Amino acid sequence: MSESAAPAEVSMDAIVALSKRRGFIFQSSEIYNGFNGFFDYGPLGSELKKNIRDCWWDDMVRRRDDVVGLETSIIMHPKVWEASGHVDGFTDPLVDCKASKQRYRADQLFFAAVEVTALKADLELEYADLVKHHGTVPPSVREKYFETKTIGYVSALESERTAQELDEKARELKRKLGVRGEIFGFKMRDMTEAAPEEIALIPSPATGEPGSLTPPRSFNMMFQTNVGAMTDGSSVAYLRPETAQGMFVDFKSVVDTGRVKLPFGIAQIGKSFRNEITPRNFIFRSREFEQMEMEYFIHEDADWAQAHQDWIQWCWDWLRSIGLPESHLSLFEHEKAKLAFYSRGTTDIMFKYPFGVQELWGIAARGNYDLTQHAKASGKPQDIFDEATKKKFVPHVIEPAVGVDRILLAVLCAAYAEEQVTDEKGNTETRTVLRLSPRIAPVKVAVLPLLKNKEVLTDRAKALYKKLQRRYAVFYDEAGAIGRRYRRQDEIGTPWCVTIDFDTIEKEGDTFTLRERDSMAQRRITEQELFQLLDEAVY
Amino acid sequence: MSESAAPAEVSMDAIVALSKRRGFIFQSSEIYNGFNGFFDYGPLGSELKKNIRDCWWDDMVRRRDDVVGLETSIIMHPKVWEASGHVDGFTDPLVDCKASKQRYRADQLFFAAVEVTALKADLELEYADLVKHHGTVPPSVREKYFETKTIGYVSALESERTAQELDEKARELKRKLGVRGEIFGFKMRDMTEAAPEEIALIPSPATGEPGSLTPPRSFNMMFQTNVGAMTDGSSVAYLRPETAQGMFVDFKSVVDTGRVKLPFGIAQIGKSFRNEITPRNFIFRSREFEQMEMEYFIHEDADWAQAHQDWIQWCWDWLRSIGLPESHLSLFEHEKAKLAFYSRGTTDIMFKYPFGVQELWGIAARGNYDLTQHAKASGKPQDIFDEATKKKFVPHVIEPAVGVDRILLAVLCAAYAEEQVTDEKGNTETRTVLRLSPRIAPVKVAVLPLLKNKEVLTDRAKALYKKLQRRYAVFYDEAGAIGRRYRRQDEIGTPWCVTIDFDTIEKEGDTFTLRERDSMAQRRITEQELFQLLDEAVY
Repeated sequence: MSESAAPAEVSMDAIVALSKRRGFIFQSSEIYNGFNGFFDYGPLGSELKKNIRDCWWDDMVRRRDDVVGLETSIIMHPKVWEASGHVDGFTDPLVDCKASKQRYRADQLFFAAVEVTALKADLELEYADLVKHHGTVPPSVREKYFETKTIGYVSALESERTAQELDEKARELKRKLGVRGEIFGFKMRDMTEAAPEEIALIPSPATGEPGSLTPPRSFNMMFQTNVGAMTDGSSVAYLRPETAQGMFVDFKSVVDTGRVKLPFGIAQIGKSFRNEITPRNFIFRSREFEQMEMEYFIHEDADWAQAHQDWIQWCWDWLRSIGLPESHLSLFEHEKAKLAFYSRGTTDIMFKYPFGVQELWGIAARGNYDLTQHAKASGKPQDIFDEATKKKFVPHVIEPAVGVDRILLAVLCAAYAEEQVTDEKGNTETRTVLRLSPRIAPVKVAVLPLLKNKEVLTDRAKALYKKLQRRYAVFYDEAGAIGRRYRRQDEIGTPWCVTIDFDTIEKEGDTFTLRERDSMAQRRITEQELFQLLDEAVY
Repeated sequence: MSESAAPAEVSMDAIVALSKRRGFIFQSSEIYNGFNGFFDYGPLGSELKKNIRDCWWDDMVRRRDDVVGLETSIIMHPKVWEASGHVDGFTDPLVDCKASKQRYRADQLFFAAVEVTALKADLELEYADLVKHHGTVPPSVREKYFETKTIGYVSALESERTAQELDEKARELKRKLGVRGEIFGFKMRDMTEAAPEEIALIPSPATGEPGSLTPPRSFNMMFQTNVGAMTDGSSVAYLRPETAQGMFVDFKSVVDTGRVKLPFGIAQIGKSFRNEITPRNFIFRSREFEQMEMEYFIHEDADWAQAHQDWIQWCWDWLRSIGLPESHLSLFEHEKAKLAFYSRGTTDIMFKYPFGVQELWGIAARGNYDLTQHAKASGKPQDIFDEATKKKFVPHVIEPAVGVDRILLAVLCAAYAEEQVTDEKGNTETRTVLRLSPRIAPVKVAVLPLLKNKEVLTDRAKALYKKLQRRYAVFYDEAGAIGRRYRRQDEIGTPWCVTIDFDTIEKEGDTFTLRERDSMAQRRITEQELFQLLDEAVY
């Protein structure tokens, strides 16, 4: 495998295994056999996650003059979610299997009618004659000898091989029923598209038998709880399904602190919760996740399309700055017709995950819908006074919304590589390497004394380590052969190793061996140069 | 007022007002009239909170060789909370008022029997004679002429003036009943101490009448929700009431990543939730809060008392390092008899808040109770192999647990001061100043061109601003008189202002005026010196 091993060839199994082995990501409550849809971040994972958050906060809030931060509570007043439309509309279509008690998201349960084209039984001999005398039969003639019949339905859950699975099941059904003829190329649909009369005919994926599936019904994805000592309807509250509403509800409070002038943004990082029926793809779709959202408020007469484009570009550049390769990123523009009525446009930055190209970052132009809704529901105007026109108006908003967990997974997938390398003795071995950007790598530098039992080396190494540790996440390792120690660091994505060897002590200049993770190249470097290198790369 | 204005004199009203005015802390969902027990952090508050978290993480995790980080999910497997004892035991005693439907925490609802000592009616004349002839009456004689009767009960909710309120209500009761005599110094008790026969006699604080209060019952403080599409008992889950259990449940997973050796700690920062019946004292006791907890695992034979002391000292020093004054800190050692049976000792670091001396940081020696409980409940051993003794054992733990919100409130209270200052013209004015440590101040430096309309000044100021912004949270302000701009920064705790004036441009050396917040002293400084100052103070 070459050094530019394409991340697309990475399997999820490899990522999950590394995540567990090296302490990036664990299943939640693993000793209790896990808890579906919840994950924990281990020692390296929590560092990596923090670095992603901190980079975003630094770039989005601290280094911009037009964006301020906010941190709102996860449990907000329930009226927030009535006004935002989440109580009524934040639903997934759900299908029950009455036989197995399993539940499925209707849009993830696919089915197809199995249609078989065969010679009409009473015309078989006549058609055989025709073929015998004429050879090829023209389609127009052929048509009246054949008929197409629906012999039943097949179903399968969404996966990378849904279509293939449906095809296999169709063939099996035909075999089982002893039907002759050819399966007619079938159309895959999901349960939200099933006609009422079809539902009883579609087999449950749990039992394989039709008759037990219910028509899709709406299921609200917000987690519900009760606040206070009452448990009746009066105390119902929700865990937020997004952080964005916090920015809208606090819009006026932020404006009143007086530091902001249009256009400006309010940014927030925090946990959100969605009661997903089928959490899947590791941390990609989980029930508890962390969002980084920003609401950028613009004048009602501003060029929103330009602002939208600018933010798409900003998000793209930011993903590049933390090391995601251009080759794995793409844009997906949502069809206008499929968007909510108030939406002016949404573009997603997509990432090529091992399980397919999926949404990473959505950038939405939402008009002034949210502020208007809250103004109506609360009776508190959410407008701003325009000094130029002497008119009040409700600002419009551009919303870039991304999940920390999805970025972290993208980062791991893009960074992971297995390479064949040859050591000094000519032996070939496989090295696992995480090509993480220095900006987000959990460990920036590993400090390694060449030998464990030479105090002159370990003392110098420890002194350097302590000095680096004041500003950076660093690691000290004296155990094992130096090559093995390099490999351990490669696997967790440490961009540089610094080795303190006899040249450090004996030669002039107090230099160390700097070993680069990706090229594996080594060169001599002074302490001052090392600090400068870090200052430039880890920002 | 002197410069060392004692933080104890600060009122909560001043803190709450500043928090709202300058965007530190808002009520959650304020436009919907707030949501009791939930708070939002505004632009400055979210920076301050992040800085507190980051300082702790840097000092606790990155700069220590024996502590690793962790980030577990807020919703964990419900068995975690059964094993930990929270499902059965994490309760508050609750009292209902059947008349008003109000609920109270029994330990926050105080009452007293009102006892009145008066002359026995039939001995009045005899006693008057006695006094007339002898002057003073010795107590032993006096006793037989007087009697003490309980005339009723009074109640009041816990506050700074509970005792005073009870006293006033007792006098009113006496007046209302027309009882003669003296009120006997009464004993204040809370509802958990009420005898069964007393409960019917204690007036409800809501109605003022006795007869409607219920005996205390246990109320579980964990917020409950349902995970998955079912809403029956099988899907019940809890929002974690503490982050600590995450460290216990993932103990083995962390050990298996191979980076740790006893003694070592696992640290976590994250939200926790407690359904407090009476949230109060601003962000001190809220329903959603953020914790910073660390579990330090030690050998079963280790000197736990020493480890406990070491961590108390570490926490104390850390609080000092972010600017809390020694004068406001104290230690409180819990009585052994009042601790849980497995606990070996708990010491709290207390802080003198405006509403009283309250717990800030608890440092508990918990034995090996938690790991043992999870081993039992999960069937997965939680022990470690001791190479020296060739024996397996379950490590013991020291747990320092602190709330970010409580630290933030302590920091604001200790930093807030109002001072009388005299300007160059001899006018006296009040300046509000937040003496925040540079480590946690939301803005580190404000860059101020002396005049707004001199491009030569604003250009130089903006260049410096941009350079500083790459590493620090900085603020650029060109609006208003320089004195007014200084005051604005004083109020939000910015340690330094840098003014770009004509000397910067015209004189040699490219120096700025550095103005220090606390002393208000000014001196010339170069760009290089400024960066060095920041590098040393903001770490």
